[in-house]
Amino acid sequence: VTTPLIISIDAMGGDHGPGVIVPGVARAADALKARGARVLLHGDETRIKAELARCPAARAISEVRHSDSVISMDEKPGQAMRRGKGSSMWNAIEAIKTGEAHACVSAGNTGALMAISKLLLRMVTKDLERPAIVASWPGMNGHVTTVLDVGANIDCDAERLVDFAIMGEAFHRAVHGVAKPTVALLNVGSEDMKGHGELREAHAILKDGGLPLAYHGFAEGDDLSRGEVDVMVTDGFTGNVALKTAEGTARFIYAEMRSAFTSGLPNKIGAFIAQAALKRLKARLDPNSLNGAPLLGLKGVVIKSHGGADQFGFANAITVAADLAQSNFAAEIETNMQKLSAVLARGSESAGAST
Amino acid sequence: VTTPLIISIDAMGGDHGPGVIVPGVARAADALKARGARVLLHGDETRIKAELARCPAARAISEVRHSDSVISMDEKPGQAMRRGKGSSMWNAIEAIKTGEAHACVSAGNTGALMAISKLLLRMVTKDLERPAIVASWPGMNGHVTTVLDVGANIDCDAERLVDFAIMGEAFHRAVHGVAKPTVALLNVGSEDMKGHGELREAHAILKDGGLPLAYHGFAEGDDLSRGEVDVMVTDGFTGNVALKTAEGTARFIYAEMRSAFTSGLPNKIGAFIAQAALKRLKARLDPNSLNGAPLLGLKGVVIKSHGGADQFGFANAITVAADLAQSNFAAEIETNMQKLSAVLARGSESAGAST
Repeated sequence: VTTPLIISIDAMGGDHGPGVIVPGVARAADALKARGARVLLHGDETRIKAELARCPAARAISEVRHSDSVISMDEKPGQAMRRGKGSSMWNAIEAIKTGEAHACVSAGNTGALMAISKLLLRMVTKDLERPAIVASWPGMNGHVTTVLDVGANIDCDAERLVDFAIMGEAFHRAVHGVAKPTVALLNVGSEDMKGHGELREAHAILKDGGLPLAYHGFAEGDDLSRGEVDVMVTDGFTGNVALKTAEGTARFIYAEMRSAFTSGLPNKIGAFIAQAALKRLKARLDPNSLNGAPLLGLKGVVIKSHGGADQFGFANAITVAADLAQSNFAAEIETNMQKLSAVLARGSESAGAST
Repeated sequence: VTTPLIISIDAMGGDHGPGVIVPGVARAADALKARGARVLLHGDETRIKAELARCPAARAISEVRHSDSVISMDEKPGQAMRRGKGSSMWNAIEAIKTGEAHACVSAGNTGALMAISKLLLRMVTKDLERPAIVASWPGMNGHVTTVLDVGANIDCDAERLVDFAIMGEAFHRAVHGVAKPTVALLNVGSEDMKGHGELREAHAILKDGGLPLAYHGFAEGDDLSRGEVDVMVTDGFTGNVALKTAEGTARFIYAEMRSAFTSGLPNKIGAFIAQAALKRLKARLDPNSLNGAPLLGLKGVVIKSHGGADQFGFANAITVAADLAQSNFAAEIETNMQKLSAVLARGSESAGAST
């Protein structure tokens, strides 16, 4: 990417809009300036300018682009595609298409963001119906595992799963700086014959297809947080259930901890110390610190920020956008997708050989 | 079931064998005596008798049945079926077939237990290839959710999912004493059009088929521990990933807690109090307290105890066996399975009506 790097931001998206997004830009401003980057802020000019007046660091690197409308958080994707033209989200994405910007960040409606991005930017491969959603999964020893798809593509054949492997690997390298990320397929056991047919077929391609990926093999649900695999590939159904199961388990354990720490404890000192430890634990697991999920599979960098992210979280999403836009991410995916096509064109002999 | 209730136990199974299983029987002895129950202990007569000598409460209600061999924990199911005849597990199951016993408990090799049980007892329906494995999932406010299948049947069509609903509901009522357990289908959202085809078809049958189940609708991964659904139905692939994801998340949070509580805390009192609270939390989440998973779908009550269960855990598995054997569980499943056949025979009109 030629400098200056331009990041296009939907300033109206998410639960908070400009009130969190502009301070988020301010937090990222020093790092952006150091990379020679600037931002375009799409949305209601009056509201954005009012926020910029309070955030001089953001104002120094921003340009405001007025848009008249906003796509609401509960709008259906189809509706958003038909009626969203001219909205802050639409314009933020369109700036990539026109070449004005190199990456886009939105905390808005996920379904609308996927649909409009696909419409305006198109997909890198015909196999994928929708961009894959990535979760950055915290694990042992501070490790983060890139998990995809966590909800966009419910039914996935072997080819799509390998697409996810290729895209997730390039993303992980660009954002986490790991030269050769390891890739695993989520399954119910590690032996070759475990799982359903599509999974075994993807396993054979990744194992024997000659793609330049560090393929680890099958992994299981508890490997998601073990911190030993860099990229975990799964279909959008299983990934979504796993993600929500983990969130529910964490919430349940917190609730149990709170009651264990507050019932019948003899003195306030202990409870106070336990509270401090709980706070530290929560900070360690704070989703804001891992905020910024790429919609993988688009011809262009589009980053989804969590709708409820705070300014710290939104700044992280901007950093992910800048990391991807300034990496070889897109070219690496294209090269490996071509290699995959060649593997598949050689027919099923090589894929079937190891099963 | 006519008294006396007889429970057939594989005394050699699990990581510990008679050294834990006989004391487990002793722990359950008072409750078993109160129900007029007795146990058959299958396995090495010398070893079992040596343990019984130390456990008079167990000896008072037990009869030893010698068997020469033991199926090892790593034996493949096919091998176990061919070579397992005369083993403690085989004989424990066979006692149900011959009518000598009303329920069987084993902490042995799960694959072998499923295969031999299916061979000797047969399945209640042709739809199911293997018995479903049940997890008792702890949730908010002390609630337990019955989750199935967590690993036996990887591919499930709509009919199998409804089979699980029928069986899980009857199990939950028999063991947890809930008159009308609520049943949900695990999905990635709650709207009718969410998920894949088989799931939507099962949803239509459960919603409109007229089965006498309290159907809640679709639920999501975080509902597993929310404590609001009694029976959560899913295919064996998704259920297995969800279970292992939850286990991994819990392990990760414990590790983070330990480091939060031990790093940089200024005084030993706080750490000590935190340790006590952690111990209480662990006790609350102790898998032994929920030990005893039925293999659902067999013509007969077979309970799998965790291989690593302690004597307290094994006693719980015996209680589950007694609860099921003395309930209307089998008859309820049969009745509802017949109703399901009638629903399916009416054709796809009713199932398709709501989609």
